[in-house]
Amino acid sequence: MVPSVSYSITVRLEVPARGSAVSDLTSAVERAGGTITALDVTASGHERLRIDVTCAATDTAHADRLVEVLRAVDGVTIHKVSDRTFLMHLGGKIEMQSKHPIRNRDDLSMIYTPGVARVSMAIAANPEDARRLTIKRNTVAVVTDGSAVLGLGNIGPQAALPVMEGKAALFKRFAGIDAWPICLDTQDVDTIVEVVRAIAPGFAGINLEDISAPRCFEVERRLRDLLDIPVFHDDQHGTAIVVLGALTNALRIVGKKLSDVRLVMSGAGAAGTAILKVLIAAGAQDVVVADVDGVIHAGRTGLGTELRWIAEHTNQAQYTGDLRGAVAGADVFVGVSAPNILTGADIATMAPDAVVFALANPDPEVDPSAAREHATVVATGRSDYPNQINNVLAFPGVFRGLLDAHSKEVRESMLIAAAHAIAGVVTDEELNPNYIVPSVFHPDVHNAVATAVRDAVAAAGVGAPPAQDGSL
Amino acid sequence: MVPSVSYSITVRLEVPARGSAVSDLTSAVERAGGTITALDVTASGHERLRIDVTCAATDTAHADRLVEVLRAVDGVTIHKVSDRTFLMHLGGKIEMQSKHPIRNRDDLSMIYTPGVARVSMAIAANPEDARRLTIKRNTVAVVTDGSAVLGLGNIGPQAALPVMEGKAALFKRFAGIDAWPICLDTQDVDTIVEVVRAIAPGFAGINLEDISAPRCFEVERRLRDLLDIPVFHDDQHGTAIVVLGALTNALRIVGKKLSDVRLVMSGAGAAGTAILKVLIAAGAQDVVVADVDGVIHAGRTGLGTELRWIAEHTNQAQYTGDLRGAVAGADVFVGVSAPNILTGADIATMAPDAVVFALANPDPEVDPSAAREHATVVATGRSDYPNQINNVLAFPGVFRGLLDAHSKEVRESMLIAAAHAIAGVVTDEELNPNYIVPSVFHPDVHNAVATAVRDAVAAAGVGAPPAQDGSL
Repeated sequence: MVPSVSYSITVRLEVPARGSAVSDLTSAVERAGGTITALDVTASGHERLRIDVTCAATDTAHADRLVEVLRAVDGVTIHKVSDRTFLMHLGGKIEMQSKHPIRNRDDLSMIYTPGVARVSMAIAANPEDARRLTIKRNTVAVVTDGSAVLGLGNIGPQAALPVMEGKAALFKRFAGIDAWPICLDTQDVDTIVEVVRAIAPGFAGINLEDISAPRCFEVERRLRDLLDIPVFHDDQHGTAIVVLGALTNALRIVGKKLSDVRLVMSGAGAAGTAILKVLIAAGAQDVVVADVDGVIHAGRTGLGTELRWIAEHTNQAQYTGDLRGAVAGADVFVGVSAPNILTGADIATMAPDAVVFALANPDPEVDPSAAREHATVVATGRSDYPNQINNVLAFPGVFRGLLDAHSKEVRESMLIAAAHAIAGVVTDEELNPNYIVPSVFHPDVHNAVATAVRDAVAAAGVGAPPAQDGSL
Repeated sequence: MVPSVSYSITVRLEVPARGSAVSDLTSAVERAGGTITALDVTASGHERLRIDVTCAATDTAHADRLVEVLRAVDGVTIHKVSDRTFLMHLGGKIEMQSKHPIRNRDDLSMIYTPGVARVSMAIAANPEDARRLTIKRNTVAVVTDGSAVLGLGNIGPQAALPVMEGKAALFKRFAGIDAWPICLDTQDVDTIVEVVRAIAPGFAGINLEDISAPRCFEVERRLRDLLDIPVFHDDQHGTAIVVLGALTNALRIVGKKLSDVRLVMSGAGAAGTAILKVLIAAGAQDVVVADVDGVIHAGRTGLGTELRWIAEHTNQAQYTGDLRGAVAGADVFVGVSAPNILTGADIATMAPDAVVFALANPDPEVDPSAAREHATVVATGRSDYPNQINNVLAFPGVFRGLLDAHSKEVRESMLIAAAHAIAGVVTDEELNPNYIVPSVFHPDVHNAVATAVRDAVAAAGVGAPPAQDGSL
């Protein structure tokens, strides 16, 4: 583990002005495995200096140890320890802004009563005008019930709020979208569906987030039936898009076709099921899926709706062995399941030029370094390895495209178009086993995704012509 | 009616460069009763000028007439007519902003994963931290079902959205609050209650807006029972606060006490009922209320829950005549009902130094000019008369106070404190029959209201101590 800014602390301390105390601070932190990223003297006198020492640690315990190491330096007094990530969260990360100044009575009478009444009447007369005269067209609800937040589990709606705020901030940063978090105090499917249906008029899209399986499947399916705006479950569809995009480029490297490869998946939860469906829609023909109870096949008993679908659409050879056996000879492994269920030796049994996506977080299905000894391309969900499968590559551009096209729904064709757009951003010159997906900061990726999705909406005929803003 | 900026249009036209055409434009608009507020030459040539003429009209029909008047000027060609209010609404009036830049991987890893996980875990361990580490503490949901929007009636949730956006903009402008519109696709009380209850975790307050009576009473009552954040129905409580504030100052002028005056009200809907309850809580003792079916008294049959409450708490003399008769000899009339139900002659029958609040919009219960001939103080809901009873005086400061105090509820004591704070902003030197309430742009009013409400929350013991932001 390398020190990370996400465990960065600022320690306000005092040291003697003379002697080696200041340089001792740096060497003490470095000896303890930390990294000093800033050392700001905030007050200076003849006898004492006050210094804000900012350093990155590997985790919370390590951050605590760094403080103790600093305290042990001769002559040091520790005043206050601040956690940079927590400081950034104070009061929340997003806010509402008015687009127009309200300086005087004239502004007030156009933004609010009496002027606003004419705008409301125009929308009442022509409901389509809501996309033109309100925030609706650029607004997405980020909806969670807090049941499956990151890898943290069922921590509830308030604890989920920082994640949803972060998501909203990313929507704005990468796609100019106004997203607002809606954290639900219910985990009942009927209630979630009813609540989201009821709040939909003010939004042009619904981004479901961190809702646990299998409830997320039913929530999404029922909302898609009820609403005339797109409903996207990022944990499923965002992940599926980036996996397909990355796999497209991995196969470009090894010179294989999706329709020809033998593909083994581990994990049949929300993400796994969505990935599987998109891969099949994109042309994958030979897929075997395993979950915690082993490989899924038509003869396995006790299959629920989702697993039955999988049994019917995969594993035509009716393989009934275990995951390890399935992996032998496979071209591609995609894991969205549990840590350390495979070893380098298992990867060695795969076909030549194997592709391994070990996406369990924070600990992958197989150690990436061990996998890399036997596979040509390895991807993970982690930011400290090459080829991070990161949803941020997908959801901003996907919604930008859906909103611009006034799409009424999300279809698999749009997900596939988004995946190919991500893959296409990596040029032939750039493509290599350690660079199969662009950075989320790549200047073209979000626009490329948006354009592809907009075109796919038009092709599907589920959008609307662009609004004629100029003419009133 | 005077021309208003809320009916302001910009007409792009061409005129001959020579001759009197340009000055003819101005005189033509003025002759037709309009006001030119700007005349911008946007292109100029030897033969022709292109000019954007901005003018204020009294209403939509008048705006159309001004365009025809301009068209009739010799040599004029009309290109395009833009409505300034509609232009301001294009794409909506509010947006979401990130408080922090997302420039690089480090920013991303603090705002989103992996850093955000620690913040979520902190809130899961200590739910009170949601007020410290998320947007919750400064965020209000502006909730409507679109059933009673302004004076426009049941125009539905999408047509209500421009009003809710305007409200959100006012929350920010006057109290720094982040409000977000929630427009509900339901008018069923049970569903509204369930939806608002479910979305509450992300908000520190609920502002109900434009929900029709009598459903609004039940929605508010049930939500107040269910939620641990304040629920405020602006149409009721905002209006009640400003009426009590204005009445306090009107009585200062005429030298009467609220507990002594005879008070007659017309209207027992959402606003009327709330005003009545606040006036009684503030000390009013002798009140008679009339609705569309006449004066409310204990002997009247067919009274619903709300009207029965009124019958039990007013009209101790058991007056059974009509409104006109009740007004005779009264000190104060407060109307929140219907246009032109009283005449100047009726006002003349009131006690000396009468106070008349005729708040029906846009046409008051009695012509304000006629009322002013017989009453000492007259107030209306209109911006083109003195003493506008405007909710914008109340709701921003009320919520600022509730949020700052972490209040779990709204009580009548807080409404009364807010009203007295509004009244107190008008000094003895400033107070006169045409200035009983401050402007919404008064530099002190919103802060005065917030402070009074914060103190009232503390007195009621339903808040929480201020968060200790500094120490992490």
